[in-house]
Amino acid sequence: MFMRVDRLITELPPPAQQDPNAAAALQELLGGKYGEMSTLGNYMFQSFNFRSKDKLRPFYSLVASITAEELAHVELVSNGVAMLNNGPDKPAADRKPGGDISKTPHEAMKDIRLASAFLSNGGGATPVNANGVSWNNDFVTTTGNVIFDLLHNFHLECGARLHKLRVYETVSDPTGREVCGYLLVRGSVHAHSYALALKKLTGVEIEKMLPTPNIPLAKIPECQKYLDEGSHRRLYTWSLEDYREISGIWSNDEVALPDDPPGALEVIEGMPDGGKIQQLVGVPSAFTPDYAPEEFYEIAAKLYKASR
Amino acid sequence: MFMRVDRLITELPPPAQQDPNAAAALQELLGGKYGEMSTLGNYMFQSFNFRSKDKLRPFYSLVASITAEELAHVELVSNGVAMLNNGPDKPAADRKPGGDISKTPHEAMKDIRLASAFLSNGGGATPVNANGVSWNNDFVTTTGNVIFDLLHNFHLECGARLHKLRVYETVSDPTGREVCGYLLVRGSVHAHSYALALKKLTGVEIEKMLPTPNIPLAKIPECQKYLDEGSHRRLYTWSLEDYREISGIWSNDEVALPDDPPGALEVIEGMPDGGKIQQLVGVPSAFTPDYAPEEFYEIAAKLYKASR
Amino acid sequence: MFMRVDRLITELPPPAQQDPNAAAALQELLGGKYGEMSTLGNYMFQSFNFRSKDKLRPFYSLVASITAEELAHVELVSNGVAMLNNGPDKPAADRKPGGDISKTPHEAMKDIRLASAFLSNGGGATPVNANGVSWNNDFVTTTGNVIFDLLHNFHLECGARLHKLRVYETVSDPTGREVCGYLLVRGSVHAHSYALALKKLTGVEIEKMLPTPNIPLAKIPECQKYLDEGSHRRLYTWSLEDYREISGIWSNDEVALPDDPPGALEVIEGMPDGGKIQQLVGVPSAFTPDYAPEEFYEIAAKLYKASR
Amino acid sequence: MFMRVDRLITELPPPAQQDPNAAAALQELLGGKYGEMSTLGNYMFQSFNFRSKDKLRPFYSLVASITAEELAHVELVSNGVAMLNNGPDKPAADRKPGGDISKTPHEAMKDIRLASAFLSNGGGATPVNANGVSWNNDFVTTTGNVIFDLLHNFHLECGARLHKLRVYETVSDPTGREVCGYLLVRGSVHAHSYALALKKLTGVEIEKMLPTPNIPLAKIPECQKYLDEGSHRRLYTWSLEDYREISGIWSNDEVALPDDPPGALEVIEGMPDGGKIQQLVGVPSAFTPDYAPEEFYEIAAKLYKASR
Amino acid sequence: MFMRVDRLITELPPPAQQDPNAAAALQELLGGKYGEMSTLGNYMFQSFNFRSKDKLRPFYSLVASITAEELAHVELVSNGVAMLNNGPDKPAADRKPGGDISKTPHEAMKDIRLASAFLSNGGGATPVNANGVSWNNDFVTTTGNVIFDLLHNFHLECGARLHKLRVYETVSDPTGREVCGYLLVRGSVHAHSYALALKKLTGVEIEKMLPTPNIPLAKIPECQKYLDEGSHRRLYTWSLEDYREISGIWSNDEVALPDDPPGALEVIEGMPDGGKIQQLVGVPSAFTPDYAPEEFYEIAAKLYKASR
Amino acid sequence: MFMRVDRLITELPPPAQQDPNAAAALQELLGGKYGEMSTLGNYMFQSFNFRSKDKLRPFYSLVASITAEELAHVELVSNGVAMLNNGPDKPAADRKPGGDISKTPHEAMKDIRLASAFLSNGGGATPVNANGVSWNNDFVTTTGNVIFDLLHNFHLECGARLHKLRVYETVSDPTGREVCGYLLVRGSVHAHSYALALKKLTGVEIEKMLPTPNIPLAKIPECQKYLDEGSHRRLYTWSLEDYREISGIWSNDEVALPDDPPGALEVIEGMPDGGKIQQLVGVPSAFTPDYAPEEFYEIAAKLYKASR
Repeated sequence: MFMRVDRLITELPPPAQQDPNAAAALQELLGGKYGEMSTLGNYMFQSFNFRSKDKLRPFYSLVASITAEELAHVELVSNGVAMLNNGPDKPAADRKPGGDISKTPHEAMKDIRLASAFLSNGGGATPVNANGVSWNNDFVTTTGNVIFDLLHNFHLECGARLHKLRVYETVSDPTGREVCGYLLVRGSVHAHSYALALKKLTGVEIEKMLPTPNIPLAKIPECQKYLDEGSHRRLYTWSLEDYREISGIWSNDEVALPDDPPGALEVIEGMPDGGKIQQLVGVPSAFTPDYAPEEFYEIAAKLYKASR
Repeated sequence: MFMRVDRLITELPPPAQQDPNAAAALQELLGGKYGEMSTLGNYMFQSFNFRSKDKLRPFYSLVASITAEELAHVELVSNGVAMLNNGPDKPAADRKPGGDISKTPHEAMKDIRLASAFLSNGGGATPVNANGVSWNNDFVTTTGNVIFDLLHNFHLECGARLHKLRVYETVSDPTGREVCGYLLVRGSVHAHSYALALKKLTGVEIEKMLPTPNIPLAKIPECQKYLDEGSHRRLYTWSLEDYREISGIWSNDEVALPDDPPGALEVIEGMPDGGKIQQLVGVPSAFTPDYAPEEFYEIAAKLYKASR
Repeated sequence: MFMRVDRLITELPPPAQQDPNAAAALQELLGGKYGEMSTLGNYMFQSFNFRSKDKLRPFYSLVASITAEELAHVELVSNGVAMLNNGPDKPAADRKPGGDISKTPHEAMKDIRLASAFLSNGGGATPVNANGVSWNNDFVTTTGNVIFDLLHNFHLECGARLHKLRVYETVSDPTGREVCGYLLVRGSVHAHSYALALKKLTGVEIEKMLPTPNIPLAKIPECQKYLDEGSHRRLYTWSLEDYREISGIWSNDEVALPDDPPGALEVIEGMPDGGKIQQLVGVPSAFTPDYAPEEFYEIAAKLYKASR
Repeated sequence: MFMRVDRLITELPPPAQQDPNAAAALQELLGGKYGEMSTLGNYMFQSFNFRSKDKLRPFYSLVASITAEELAHVELVSNGVAMLNNGPDKPAADRKPGGDISKTPHEAMKDIRLASAFLSNGGGATPVNANGVSWNNDFVTTTGNVIFDLLHNFHLECGARLHKLRVYETVSDPTGREVCGYLLVRGSVHAHSYALALKKLTGVEIEKMLPTPNIPLAKIPECQKYLDEGSHRRLYTWSLEDYREISGIWSNDEVALPDDPPGALEVIEGMPDGGKIQQLVGVPSAFTPDYAPEEFYEIAAKLYKASR
Repeated sequence: MFMRVDRLITELPPPAQQDPNAAAALQELLGGKYGEMSTLGNYMFQSFNFRSKDKLRPFYSLVASITAEELAHVELVSNGVAMLNNGPDKPAADRKPGGDISKTPHEAMKDIRLASAFLSNGGGATPVNANGVSWNNDFVTTTGNVIFDLLHNFHLECGARLHKLRVYETVSDPTGREVCGYLLVRGSVHAHSYALALKKLTGVEIEKMLPTPNIPLAKIPECQKYLDEGSHRRLYTWSLEDYREISGIWSNDEVALPDDPPGALEVIEGMPDGGKIQQLVGVPSAFTPDYAPEEFYEIAAKLYKASR
Repeated sequence: MFMRVDRLITELPPPAQQDPNAAAALQELLGGKYGEMSTLGNYMFQSFNFRSKDKLRPFYSLVASITAEELAHVELVSNGVAMLNNGPDKPAADRKPGGDISKTPHEAMKDIRLASAFLSNGGGATPVNANGVSWNNDFVTTTGNVIFDLLHNFHLECGARLHKLRVYETVSDPTGREVCGYLLVRGSVHAHSYALALKKLTGVEIEKMLPTPNIPLAKIPECQKYLDEGSHRRLYTWSLEDYREISGIWSNDEVALPDDPPGALEVIEGMPDGGKIQQLVGVPSAFTPDYAPEEFYEIAAKLYKASR
């Protein structure tokens, strides 16, 4: 089971301007083969299907706990997509409720790369890649063979890193860049942790392949504050009581990757504090939350009051 | 963000025997259009994309908190699938490590309906339906229009109920029947809650359409214990601190559906206790966790010890 | 535009017994690459996209009018599928409304080839092939090049004939066989008509390739009555007033194919009389039309009365 | 069965200019989840699979007759797409037959959003959405449960309305706007009719949710003439003799929705007059109908003459 | 089995500039329904599945040998795609290894039509069409019926020609135009050869439909040198020793198509000489072959030396 | 470019009987995520897209040459599928040309798992997996990053091995078992070779993870003769003149994996001798090559003679 916390894994700066094609690029990190839906889907189903959970507890706990972080990554990229599609979160002229919509107020949306993102989703995120192709079961590997699934996961995280780097290179908006910067640090942790798991089981020092691509995180300014706070050395249990056995793998005997700020690896019980989730102010002319939502707001206010 | 708890939302009885076609039927409730991946995917992306979250707090909180329960439902069905594919969780003759695999030990798997479930997933669950067709973005509706998305969700839960009823009618194994029975009760709660949300916003008493199909839960023996404990009147916040505003919608002023045991609706902060997750003992001849996993078990035991 | 007539293009004999796998085989003729959804989809979009309709009137009218017949073919196969999934149309023991559904009344459905046909569609037809794979845009060719589109259509009808023959060879039930027998005759007409259109435009006597496969219709007992009544020589306008120009292509100067009963080709204004559509009596235990539908029947009876 | 009439459900004004991205936006209303292929596919298969047709006649007739109108809607959007891809229907310089094609005459098509629409379809419409993703069986719900299928259809029409509104807001060309304006009125009728059907069966006044989104048709100038003529109060039988029982549901006792011009609802036997279908003059340089089609025109003229 | 030769079937001129949308247009000829993956996939599986290979040797050999040429066509289009995505093959400022990547060096890639081509493939070719939709089994027809499969192949080659012509009309870069020009000549040979095979078996002179579309190759300047060297009259065995029996079909008794330079048809044992394959110099800032690849180059140089 | 040789990479024993479900199981090794179409598609596109081919020659040559072997593997599995669908290659009673087909001669095909394999492909192989789901671009990884692509390939070969083992365990027929046995040996070579490539570039001894799953080839009787002849130590160039640089990676300094028969690794210029391809005698009642093919055989015989 999973509990929910109404926080974002890291706070995103507001977008400088509406940039649907940047949002579409970010979709590659959400619904693409090497995107967050894939890391989520792979680890989630692997953890459900895991064999002999007790006998292989540290390995089960590793896959199970990272699953929870991937949910937060899916949320982070989705927020980034919606924010970039939306632009700065303040009411614009065309955003007042109940106005005249007959003057083609959203003509610009006709020419964006993934027009359905506006037409169907009102600028919201969906599990598709940068070309609009859906995430699907083809991206899920769950064989039940523990070495192979771990190897797959190591390869998946390396591939995810490459995709994050390339998306980062195409977006200039701070929102999109922050998403990439944060995920590069955390993705690096996950790649490292699967490498250590494989090393424990096979003796192969596969973590020496990292970083792949061979560019250190230090080259990405947006990674800096996360490196400074030691995020690259921390693995969370994402649980109040469970999954502590990951410290058998991500242990103090192991240290940070050579290119990163040095220090011992550490397991944190629980999860990061995270930051505030964006409000995403509605766009009445796009019928979000509706064309004339004032009445809804009043109803909601009353219900809110009643709930307290 | 989401925290993980290593418990199943309700404990499943062990399967009486291996029944891959029953597992395949259950897949309809996992990866089908009206399955749990769909309820999860719809509510998760709707909550990420929700507009004016603060102004519409009770409605946002409703969608956001139910998302967390859907994760537990995906987990429940996945466990059911894996258990039915696996059969009773005790070492069989062909399950001893390192034996002779040349005598076609899994010939029966050649004729099961979804052979890839064995060949590719070692009996594990994946996000596909009962015909092996993948879950995908076509099943996600997230428009940002609050009335429409709620209406969609109400329809989705009614459709999910219909599918659960039909799957229930095809499986005789206690594992599969328990999955259906439990989900019928909880799905009913979700349909009811979306109906109430729509009623608050539009005045239409759409909850009067329930139950759809028009069969009361009392007709399903497996639902009985859940009705007895009042599960049909409870909505969880699935959070330690957030989403309490759902009590503005699922309020004590509202009561259980007419066919169900009577009583006021209640919001529970937090989540249900849940039950134990199945171990899924490995099948070395199927290379889960591997052909000769003893060495892995020893390594894991040492790491486990080190983690304490 | 299209008007609808509540008749089936030919009347189907009731099935001897429920045979979901035969229904699944028939699905190949509905949603497969060479099935009726494909002939419909190709001709419908070709007719919508047709260039210089007036200048090429006889060719436009050919594609446009056959489109209408393909709708009737989609309807015919769909009826066949639903009938075979359903079995004989009389209330069985498990079909009485409001009974006990807890004894796994539809366990047999767990093992049928396309279980979703029961679980999701209650035995109804959907646009998928015999493996459950969806019909989609990949099966539509509409280039706007008149020679190429006609050549494609000729190839499509030949392929459709081959598939009909093979499905025919796998089903023993009279319902499924009648569907195949009828469609073989009409498909032959369509192949012939596209061949003549190509001959008019290019001089190539491509109709001499018919029949492909090289088995005469006379070998199929179910085709006999249709040959006897001359169906193989008739092309309908499927319209009250339009598309008569097809007689420039399917003209009296042309005769039946050598293997078929001889005679001149003829264009019929309008459509065939057709036969009665099956009622498909509901199965309350499968929630069709519902679990306890009597009240609905009463409401419908009153509304029916009011409408007269 | 269906008969065809060579008229468009409403006449479309010629496009002001070639606008392939506007055509691509319109594709959302053709092949998208909430597009016309979906309304067609859902109602068509539901009507084929309908249980106990006689006992539930008014409901069967409702779904069956609206199916026919959806065909006309598919045709309308397809015509709009082809017209916008094509531009004004007069021979341009590059449209003369048999010329030099080596100077990259269609370079602009390289940069349009859905390039395959030109490369593969010569500007014709196909069943894909605004992102080029195919329509498919995932969009078809046909369960055989009458309440649920009607509820699904009500939700589908509401979703379709939302998508039409958004596409309308992105296109400035009169052709595309007319398509949206017309469909908004007729879609509203269909949503209303399914709401009334549900009300008859369940007592729930679900029509009070309309309009969703909550913007009245009067806000759309292109809807005005259709409202003036009372189109919003009319449901057609789309048949010469059948489906009259829909007047049990869409009855004179019911009136127009509050925001629309007032008046009693009325059932019209038959179909609307409709308007002229566009010729779509060929583009020889795009090989439609061919590179040097004059010979074809002569052949067709002779055949046309022969057919009279 | 297949042997590989490190040569391209014809040498491509370097691109004048980076043009990802031209590359995307070319993708239609790679992964589209009528692209080279389709000709390859169809003939390859038909040759594997061919019945009574010895009894029908000339026909088997035809399909089998053309399969090999289609591999070379897939390679040719793929090279064209990669070259156009890449631009001229010389190190640009942003291509030096190990630099600062934080200044959004690939911002232009955010707005290209198929952004995943950069984000996921680093500008490489993949089996998708111009809209980014994947090649798949829907495009493969292999029925085992010899007449029908040949007819399908004839239609496929005609369709391929139409698509090549349209892509040609949208690209101005010499690389893309050369790909189209070459493939038009060779595609014409394949259409011709399947026509002759059908003629031998059925007597129908279907080759008289060629060229379809009805534009002669002479109209395409890029075809000229290939016509001059007689490429349109040559069919290769693509084998050292096998498939010579194709000369029973593509025989000296047959001559070139009327519009093309005259002469007898000829079978060439073996394959064309072909040309040099492009190097595709890496782009370190896109992590191809990596961010700082010098060390790899050194290792490779040593290994290369060791291999000699 | 590729040349073709009319030989199978290893000769397959004839099937003991027709076993369509075994053929369907084998399809997992053809069109599944970890099947031969995937190894082919990945290496083929990686080799086309390879950056700085000259500078990284040994690595380029490795990927390029293995591509050719994967074609032979696709051919081998396809032959296995067709043979198992077909059964022993001798004319049966129902196989005589021109007979009566009205007695449901292929009723057994109605109940096989992948009925379309008969209905559409006449028992031929197609690029789908064991559930009938198509191979597609989702299975292709080609990033241009040399380390990552090699790591992906290593993981792909390990996954392929696991799938081969499982398919092997479900089929008792000698044809299917030989396919698996052969591919296990060769797949092991490919996994080993990618591991060595990674070791050269990164220093990580990743080959120590082999075999994964951890069962030695010696446990598979069908592998024995290939081990005896040293196939596990041989890498072919699959070329007359190119790709010799692979000996920089697969060098004599390296030896066989510890569990396999010992010896130095060796590069063979060229390809294996292979064996005879099955004739696949036609089934006239299934219209392969046609219903009454004698005339075709005569035509072919004459053409064959003319070709000599």
